[in-house]
Amino acid sequence: MSDGRRGFASDNAATVHPAVLESIAKANVGHAFGYGHDSYTASVEQRVADALGAPAGAQVYFVFNGTGANVLSLRAALRPWQAAIVSENAHLHTDEVGAPEAVAGSKLLVAETVDGKLTLRGLQRLIEKPNDEHFVKAGLLSLTQSTEFGTLYSLAEFRSLVDTAHAGGLLVHVDGARLANAAAALGVGLAEVVAGVDLVSFGATKNGALGCEAVVVLNPALTEGMLHLRKQTLQLASKMRFLAAQFDALLTDELWRLNAGHANAMASRLADAVGAIEGVVVSRRPAVNAVFATLPAAARVRLLEDFDFYEWDATTGEVRWMCAWDTTEADVDGFAAAVRTAVASA
Amino acid sequence: MSDGRRGFASDNAATVHPAVLESIAKANVGHAFGYGHDSYTASVEQRVADALGAPAGAQVYFVFNGTGANVLSLRAALRPWQAAIVSENAHLHTDEVGAPEAVAGSKLLVAETVDGKLTLRGLQRLIEKPNDEHFVKAGLLSLTQSTEFGTLYSLAEFRSLVDTAHAGGLLVHVDGARLANAAAALGVGLAEVVAGVDLVSFGATKNGALGCEAVVVLNPALTEGMLHLRKQTLQLASKMRFLAAQFDALLTDELWRLNAGHANAMASRLADAVGAIEGVVVSRRPAVNAVFATLPAAARVRLLEDFDFYEWDATTGEVRWMCAWDTTEADVDGFAAAVRTAVASA
Amino acid sequence: MSDGRRGFASDNAATVHPAVLESIAKANVGHAFGYGHDSYTASVEQRVADALGAPAGAQVYFVFNGTGANVLSLRAALRPWQAAIVSENAHLHTDEVGAPEAVAGSKLLVAETVDGKLTLRGLQRLIEKPNDEHFVKAGLLSLTQSTEFGTLYSLAEFRSLVDTAHAGGLLVHVDGARLANAAAALGVGLAEVVAGVDLVSFGATKNGALGCEAVVVLNPALTEGMLHLRKQTLQLASKMRFLAAQFDALLTDELWRLNAGHANAMASRLADAVGAIEGVVVSRRPAVNAVFATLPAAARVRLLEDFDFYEWDATTGEVRWMCAWDTTEADVDGFAAAVRTAVASA
Amino acid sequence: MSDGRRGFASDNAATVHPAVLESIAKANVGHAFGYGHDSYTASVEQRVADALGAPAGAQVYFVFNGTGANVLSLRAALRPWQAAIVSENAHLHTDEVGAPEAVAGSKLLVAETVDGKLTLRGLQRLIEKPNDEHFVKAGLLSLTQSTEFGTLYSLAEFRSLVDTAHAGGLLVHVDGARLANAAAALGVGLAEVVAGVDLVSFGATKNGALGCEAVVVLNPALTEGMLHLRKQTLQLASKMRFLAAQFDALLTDELWRLNAGHANAMASRLADAVGAIEGVVVSRRPAVNAVFATLPAAARVRLLEDFDFYEWDATTGEVRWMCAWDTTEADVDGFAAAVRTAVASA
Repeated sequence: MSDGRRGFASDNAATVHPAVLESIAKANVGHAFGYGHDSYTASVEQRVADALGAPAGAQVYFVFNGTGANVLSLRAALRPWQAAIVSENAHLHTDEVGAPEAVAGSKLLVAETVDGKLTLRGLQRLIEKPNDEHFVKAGLLSLTQSTEFGTLYSLAEFRSLVDTAHAGGLLVHVDGARLANAAAALGVGLAEVVAGVDLVSFGATKNGALGCEAVVVLNPALTEGMLHLRKQTLQLASKMRFLAAQFDALLTDELWRLNAGHANAMASRLADAVGAIEGVVVSRRPAVNAVFATLPAAARVRLLEDFDFYEWDATTGEVRWMCAWDTTEADVDGFAAAVRTAVASA
Repeated sequence: MSDGRRGFASDNAATVHPAVLESIAKANVGHAFGYGHDSYTASVEQRVADALGAPAGAQVYFVFNGTGANVLSLRAALRPWQAAIVSENAHLHTDEVGAPEAVAGSKLLVAETVDGKLTLRGLQRLIEKPNDEHFVKAGLLSLTQSTEFGTLYSLAEFRSLVDTAHAGGLLVHVDGARLANAAAALGVGLAEVVAGVDLVSFGATKNGALGCEAVVVLNPALTEGMLHLRKQTLQLASKMRFLAAQFDALLTDELWRLNAGHANAMASRLADAVGAIEGVVVSRRPAVNAVFATLPAAARVRLLEDFDFYEWDATTGEVRWMCAWDTTEADVDGFAAAVRTAVASA
Repeated sequence: MSDGRRGFASDNAATVHPAVLESIAKANVGHAFGYGHDSYTASVEQRVADALGAPAGAQVYFVFNGTGANVLSLRAALRPWQAAIVSENAHLHTDEVGAPEAVAGSKLLVAETVDGKLTLRGLQRLIEKPNDEHFVKAGLLSLTQSTEFGTLYSLAEFRSLVDTAHAGGLLVHVDGARLANAAAALGVGLAEVVAGVDLVSFGATKNGALGCEAVVVLNPALTEGMLHLRKQTLQLASKMRFLAAQFDALLTDELWRLNAGHANAMASRLADAVGAIEGVVVSRRPAVNAVFATLPAAARVRLLEDFDFYEWDATTGEVRWMCAWDTTEADVDGFAAAVRTAVASA
Repeated sequence: MSDGRRGFASDNAATVHPAVLESIAKANVGHAFGYGHDSYTASVEQRVADALGAPAGAQVYFVFNGTGANVLSLRAALRPWQAAIVSENAHLHTDEVGAPEAVAGSKLLVAETVDGKLTLRGLQRLIEKPNDEHFVKAGLLSLTQSTEFGTLYSLAEFRSLVDTAHAGGLLVHVDGARLANAAAALGVGLAEVVAGVDLVSFGATKNGALGCEAVVVLNPALTEGMLHLRKQTLQLASKMRFLAAQFDALLTDELWRLNAGHANAMASRLADAVGAIEGVVVSRRPAVNAVFATLPAAARVRLLEDFDFYEWDATTGEVRWMCAWDTTEADVDGFAAAVRTAVASA
């Protein structure tokens, strides 16, 4: 990446929203007990709990990053002989460099996946698999909403998976690194998106924060030992108030929805613009803030000279263009024009 | 803690230094590759390496917190059958809720410790211990400088321990959560403090940062796989530039020394003031920013009504009063006066 | 299982070969240092090394069971950030209840598999996969010879996989729970079967032993720390001479080959007999001692009243009939007749 | 060790009792389901349960060795944030090469220990220790009966520790590698020795077996997932009937008591004999089958030329002489005579 140049590499290449920095600055007054034992942090934990429709007894634990949130969730929900069912594109499976296995000691069971979404049939097959002492017992279903492919489970699809998992004796976790994008796209509140699940990795970083996620334990039975577990899982911030401050900003006046909705809209605008270019195929209609497309290899190479983005699949040449809260219409239009030029000369 | 009231609980109850927040704000411009793959982060890594006198091939890895830095260091330095030798007061042993064991899988061997400092004799005994397949093999010495008791290894003591460890085939790690306080107190540079060691947990959070530490691998042989290992150890920030920015601020014009030296001076001032009070015994002359003292139980209880601090040892009634970069002379003098009053009426 | 009735459930349902029990009894004289530090054990370790064509510096470690051998091998060969490439039917993946993940902390990468055998193309794809810090680095290829499906890699196929793995910087492990069956079927020595690999789980239990396997580390670079690692991996027998005695018996006059060859021949006889029955399809020509077949569900149910065996695939109704060193021609012929009767009346 | 020469190195240097080998041979008839799913194994599990006074719902799990039994027990009893309290001489702490930490991920908390026995005061201190998220929570007390020092908790001492642990919310485990020696010495049944505890590592190997231990889960609440956990902890024998057969023999006509009582008596005889020699000090009156003594260094060196035994403490020169089920009066008398000669000429 050339320094400072704008691109579509990832929503974590984006800046921090000014309101988040202001909130941090505002929290930076006087002494406060560390490790979250201050009243400000407690109040923001409650705000998060409320936003996710948490029942009495639920608890919120701020952590540093998404991998930390996911691995802590596995450690909280699984006993040693149990495994988590995930989609084949789950971050837990493909982007956490074996942390679930190395740190949580958990095997992952990969279910049939279509368009980034775990299928009901795939889940049922794994649940119904005969289980003896030679094979791990599925203990948790982890769903990513929205998915790594920028797709969405509809609320009905999601509910069906959750119910099936529960009926099979499994707990349910949501990897919500882009939970805000999902809620914005579905036009519902955060609580509706996670209705019925047991615990959530609720992401703020990709939504305009500096670096903060929360593990929200909606099922009170899973909170035992969690304070110890967060610390042991290397996710306990000493100056916790500055993590709380980030969520505080994003929850104020639904800034999270504004940011996510904007990112989603920019992806939609980009898909429309590039979809109209001959030689470009938008492989998946963007449900949230990612555009997946194929284009001539020469055009891709040409574009990478001026813009940052990732080749998603080396075999198909599919690329991913990611929009963020700070992606502008000018960014999108300029890039679409560059795509048109690059494809024309390819 | 009553909200906002000032106290002596910990240096992580302190605020973020304004220069750190400014540095973060300055870095918040444009897009930047995540995970540290941006040129700004690279440049700050180099600044940290230079500050610690790192040789060619050394590498700097920013991480979230001290426990993360320490556990990542163990994972980088130890093979599965090896253990780390630590003092009986080491943070790794007493304050990381079993993360070294649970996440790194490493047993800790506790060496004889006097006044918070691991003794040369204690180290030698563990190195010379006959070793067969039934007992872990010591692979690493971890020294905390300055110690959890606010004491310091002299440069000569430190060197002697490092040389003994190396002669015994061990690597050496420094838990430098308060490395800046040590350098300031010893009147030397950071490089002199860590001379000869293999890897360092270099702390910024207690020194005025928002939340950032670095694992500095001075021994190039230990860098293999470290990028993967940091990620797997749940310590990889996506928006890395904002961790880099914190170190950038602290390294500029030796702000780290200013902050640490001030905290140390405040502890010294406090020790002088309370040491003059009949009924108060300063148990250890503060070498850095912690004052340990005993005082009548009734006085302690009385003081806790207005100020935050920790009882360190329930059996002796010893308390710890910690100064930070933002502790003021007025804080110290006001507290000393309160101590005098509380003791008088006890 | 009705007690004592004979069946085709598994080669571990078989008895211990009398020569193995005699060897144990013979070793049961006088005192001997525990944990393998006796000269008898050393001599048998050398016999095993010789049988596998081990170079100078190679080492043999007797362990309790196959899962122990495999997990110890992973721990010896992999660094924490590395993964093992396995077939989709590998025992490590499907029958060790997550021990590779929970005990070795290793993620398994499942390669394309045809007829129980990992394909060269599948291996190449995983080796060539772009690797950054978000994804585990393949460090080891684990091949099962003969496979869980009773199939065999030819020596040329095997060599090609080994060379490709080595060229890609990977080490190679062989899960040889049925190594003897492979050598017998291929008509070569054990050394030829494992030529070029780095470490082997060499099984004796399914070959007529009471309970003993060996991890043979052919690559001397991997022996560091192995004595400690075997103990830590819960695989160190105190009365080691009685594990050694089992291998001693099987290596004498190539009893291993006699036992394995007989089991293979019985499977071949069974396949011929049942293959001739209308309504029974032998799904895979047995290369070693397993017969896989499909037959009418009613016939399967009927047969299970009198004989023990496993349904292998609930969706296809495929069954597995396993022969052992102690399977007799009468066992085979009697069972085949029963199959014929059951199918006829189905 | 010179091959075959008799000594006092360890009770695992002893032979297998003939009745154990006979029992194995007797079990070696016909086919039997593997992994313990045969009726013979089930019947022996019940015999073990009965011998230990197990309540309904208790379960017995045969495993390979003592370290396996202990680590499996930790995994069954502890959640990730919990630690086990052990004595400073516990096998878990000093002889398992970090397996509790590496495999169970558990930190061990070392309690005050006198003469090999954990003290009530030591236990109370650890239970009463203030516990926050920075320090592991004690979840289990592990008591070794008889101890590594050949000492015994009286039934009253034992009960007091168990009750204190339970009152503090801890579970209780017994490392009973020499449970038989304890019961024989105390003149009670095995059930009385483990009365009130939650789970037991019940050893057979040192008591005349070939190699077998059992984890007996007396507390039914801890049996969940145990079959999976045993397999995952690498302790599941495929030909399980041959582990069962060993316990079968030892439980028949209380052979365990005969073997243990004899070993204890031989130690007593040895202590009497050598205690009468000037220059030899029996450091601890043997409660079970170990004699600890000091003698002139030259005499120790001289004795080691003809007999095997261990120097226990290099700093004091204390040695350990261990008696086994197969130690004869002639062995003892011959050795005592040799000690007298060696000391006289030292």
